[in-house]
Amino acid sequence: MKRTVSCHLELSVAGPAELVFGVAVAAGIPLATEALTVSSGGEYLTPDELQDAHGTRLHRVRVDAGTVLLDYAACADGLAEPAGVDEIDRLRYLRQSRYCESDRLAPTAAAEFEGLTGIALLTAVVGWVHDRISYVGGASVGTDSALDTLLARRGVCRDFAHLCIALLRALGVPARMAAVYAPGLSPMEFHAVCEALVDGTWWVVDATGHAPRQSLLRIATGRDAADTAFLTSFGAPVELVALDVSATAEDFAPDDQQTLTRLR
Amino acid sequence: MKRTVSCHLELSVAGPAELVFGVAVAAGIPLATEALTVSSGGEYLTPDELQDAHGTRLHRVRVDAGTVLLDYAACADGLAEPAGVDEIDRLRYLRQSRYCESDRLAPTAAAEFEGLTGIALLTAVVGWVHDRISYVGGASVGTDSALDTLLARRGVCRDFAHLCIALLRALGVPARMAAVYAPGLSPMEFHAVCEALVDGTWWVVDATGHAPRQSLLRIATGRDAADTAFLTSFGAPVELVALDVSATAEDFAPDDQQTLTRLR
Amino acid sequence: MKRTVSCHLELSVAGPAELVFGVAVAAGIPLATEALTVSSGGEYLTPDELQDAHGTRLHRVRVDAGTVLLDYAACADGLAEPAGVDEIDRLRYLRQSRYCESDRLAPTAAAEFEGLTGIALLTAVVGWVHDRISYVGGASVGTDSALDTLLARRGVCRDFAHLCIALLRALGVPARMAAVYAPGLSPMEFHAVCEALVDGTWWVVDATGHAPRQSLLRIATGRDAADTAFLTSFGAPVELVALDVSATAEDFAPDDQQTLTRLR
Amino acid sequence: MKRTVSCHLELSVAGPAELVFGVAVAAGIPLATEALTVSSGGEYLTPDELQDAHGTRLHRVRVDAGTVLLDYAACADGLAEPAGVDEIDRLRYLRQSRYCESDRLAPTAAAEFEGLTGIALLTAVVGWVHDRISYVGGASVGTDSALDTLLARRGVCRDFAHLCIALLRALGVPARMAAVYAPGLSPMEFHAVCEALVDGTWWVVDATGHAPRQSLLRIATGRDAADTAFLTSFGAPVELVALDVSATAEDFAPDDQQTLTRLR
Repeated sequence: MKRTVSCHLELSVAGPAELVFGVAVAAGIPLATEALTVSSGGEYLTPDELQDAHGTRLHRVRVDAGTVLLDYAACADGLAEPAGVDEIDRLRYLRQSRYCESDRLAPTAAAEFEGLTGIALLTAVVGWVHDRISYVGGASVGTDSALDTLLARRGVCRDFAHLCIALLRALGVPARMAAVYAPGLSPMEFHAVCEALVDGTWWVVDATGHAPRQSLLRIATGRDAADTAFLTSFGAPVELVALDVSATAEDFAPDDQQTLTRLR
Repeated sequence: MKRTVSCHLELSVAGPAELVFGVAVAAGIPLATEALTVSSGGEYLTPDELQDAHGTRLHRVRVDAGTVLLDYAACADGLAEPAGVDEIDRLRYLRQSRYCESDRLAPTAAAEFEGLTGIALLTAVVGWVHDRISYVGGASVGTDSALDTLLARRGVCRDFAHLCIALLRALGVPARMAAVYAPGLSPMEFHAVCEALVDGTWWVVDATGHAPRQSLLRIATGRDAADTAFLTSFGAPVELVALDVSATAEDFAPDDQQTLTRLR
Repeated sequence: MKRTVSCHLELSVAGPAELVFGVAVAAGIPLATEALTVSSGGEYLTPDELQDAHGTRLHRVRVDAGTVLLDYAACADGLAEPAGVDEIDRLRYLRQSRYCESDRLAPTAAAEFEGLTGIALLTAVVGWVHDRISYVGGASVGTDSALDTLLARRGVCRDFAHLCIALLRALGVPARMAAVYAPGLSPMEFHAVCEALVDGTWWVVDATGHAPRQSLLRIATGRDAADTAFLTSFGAPVELVALDVSATAEDFAPDDQQTLTRLR
Repeated sequence: MKRTVSCHLELSVAGPAELVFGVAVAAGIPLATEALTVSSGGEYLTPDELQDAHGTRLHRVRVDAGTVLLDYAACADGLAEPAGVDEIDRLRYLRQSRYCESDRLAPTAAAEFEGLTGIALLTAVVGWVHDRISYVGGASVGTDSALDTLLARRGVCRDFAHLCIALLRALGVPARMAAVYAPGLSPMEFHAVCEALVDGTWWVVDATGHAPRQSLLRIATGRDAADTAFLTSFGAPVELVALDVSATAEDFAPDDQQTLTRLR
């Protein structure tokens, strides 16, 4: 399966700032080609690349006031080898996080999913979130958490993922967020999904059902949206002027929600 | 400086459960002696030891219903070599976390500490929290966050640390929580403090002012209390029946709050 | 039906304070006998009586530091004539209030009770709350709202009433709280129930199911617990040292939850 | 002083709905002229007028799907006689309400205003809110409360009023919200201010400082924005298509924030 992705960002930066981009596909995915350029005021910069234990690759630049452009393109011609399961990770992803308050959602989770375990539990949680939350573009704000999503009964992909993650953790299932390129997503943009550790494997689930899971490309992995943003900035205010994302895949079947799938 | 610590836990476990203890001093602290025993129903168990990238050492056992006893004792006869600063860590500890909502506290932080940077900022934040929050044993509950603490104006050591951490992150200063043994603390119990990354070094600060920082021994390091609990359990309900902690140090001066100090 | 109620309060007051008691049965209930005494430091006081538009009777005294005792007893030998429905009230009790955030619970209410109206809706809401919330004495704190109750899935009588009220208002049904004496309640204490305006009548419902509704005696009526507290104090701190409540009724049948009932 | 006000609303109503308008000046203000018209689909309706105990005048119509237009104009040629202080009101406006969580803000209020009473306290609270909150049009949403405003450090007029009200109540000062026409406000729109009961008089304060208080005309009075909305609807969704407000006054001096003023 050949997968081709790209993104283009235009930022307006008000003064000296540090920008950290999470747009490159994760380490471990075999790439035929890859190119990343960042310019500020028309001049090309050389970003530092930082890589975390999950293979998340962050690109960092320091810029002054002005227009910053980022262009990224990659072509993957293979699938990542699934990583082993780290015992410390297993514990880390059982813990409550900023946008996944598994502690406050524990009574709800316990009541709604009593008696379920394993894959049946995972399927039930994803279906429950799918049935209750409406996808409404622009419906949520950056400080919204799983609890807010449950109350508002609507959100975007990150909100669906947060709610799945919070419920799963509350039920003793390690769960985390992955930012991904999603061939087949419409409208096309960065996507976020949930990964859950069941029977020794990190399965990917997506309560939005908006994109086939089999061809997703991992970008970043973490506890929730706080860990997986495509842009984090420090210093002067930064405004996102334009964002274009593309992702295509050859030779993949439409998603079958009954099939267990890993991010590869 | 010789430091001697111990703890004793008695738990009542209602059924099959997995217990993860965070009570051992962190890797990297030179130890003359160390002993950890865990028994369930009078029978000794052999815990797995898991160690994370910060040197946090977790001990895990699986138990059935009954009384679980843990005894830990260690004697440190040296100081840890300070670890280098990891760039990924620097980013990680700028992010909002479950109990440190730096996103929601950003307007407060920006208004209260305008114009300050570096050590002056760190000192100002710790003093601000110290002046506003009253230490009241039992005043907070496990789901309380930095925001709750700011509103309630009272809390225990974890609450003081959460509020410092949240404000610092909101101001662009990486900050994290350390669970520690604290010689000189009264009443004696597990203690929690904030570490902030300023000028390339992780300094330890403690807005409670309850224990000298120079002789603290690190146990666990993480984003907030979700990462640094002395006990995490999965499965059947677990009740803490008894907890005794001791910590003493030879040859250390009383804390001088003006002195920058690292956890060693 | 003859109904006999009493209460005894002992307070420890730390300094000059104004105390407002909401313990007397509401105006409009025919009383054979009634007696209220309040003493401070052994000396009897003469409370002011304030009566609101609903017939809630509040008794106010100003006291100095010391022990305050209140004793109240009344015997009702008839039923209140139901009041007409005030159009301003109808609007007032559709509005969100401190502990009944009908605005934030509107999406949940809309999704869970779609298509229902009138008595069927009222019955459905009460059943839904009854099924989801566990009665746990001491489980909630004074600042808990309907939203907190829904998340915690447990509470006491005021929490059950708040959640019913919030859901009903969100669905366009005026709803309010009544503090009542409740013959048959066990353990005996002050009780709180919900009144909902359906088909031109204020019906009383009780999702706890803990007391027969037919013999309840109204004390106070308002938006939520903020309006119906048995004690409100201003000034120096006040501690509740003792509270005893009694309520008995002759000649009443056990509650039949299928029967529509008014507070009389 | 002659004061002239008007408003024009255009609504798009999706189906059968009940609309309640709070746009008429309150009872008690001597009017030379007044006219209110409401039309639906080009046909004039006859609204019911409901008046509450504060003189708030609400106008209610039932409409079907279509465009609803409301036009209101009034000319006041005198000042309202100040109403006496109702003891039940005094208690009512000490209570926590939906958007004024005086219970949760009590620790903040106690710490920030220790030792102040009476007019000095009132002045201090208004100045404190003025100094900390930035007026930012569109910065808040309808579910935002005083607590949210304090955290966000910004808001519109209703948010400033909510925060003043909540702090005052927490300090034992009865406080309420008034919706008003505000000659001199820029940009012109409906305005909201706080009234506080100090030394036996309801004084009007406005932490935004955006309009002279001496010429304000009261529309509605209540606990918070839940009670004083210019439009409340039940039934089908209602969209506000256009809103124009005007208010002018002859012969009034610019506001002197040092002067105690009543709403008249």
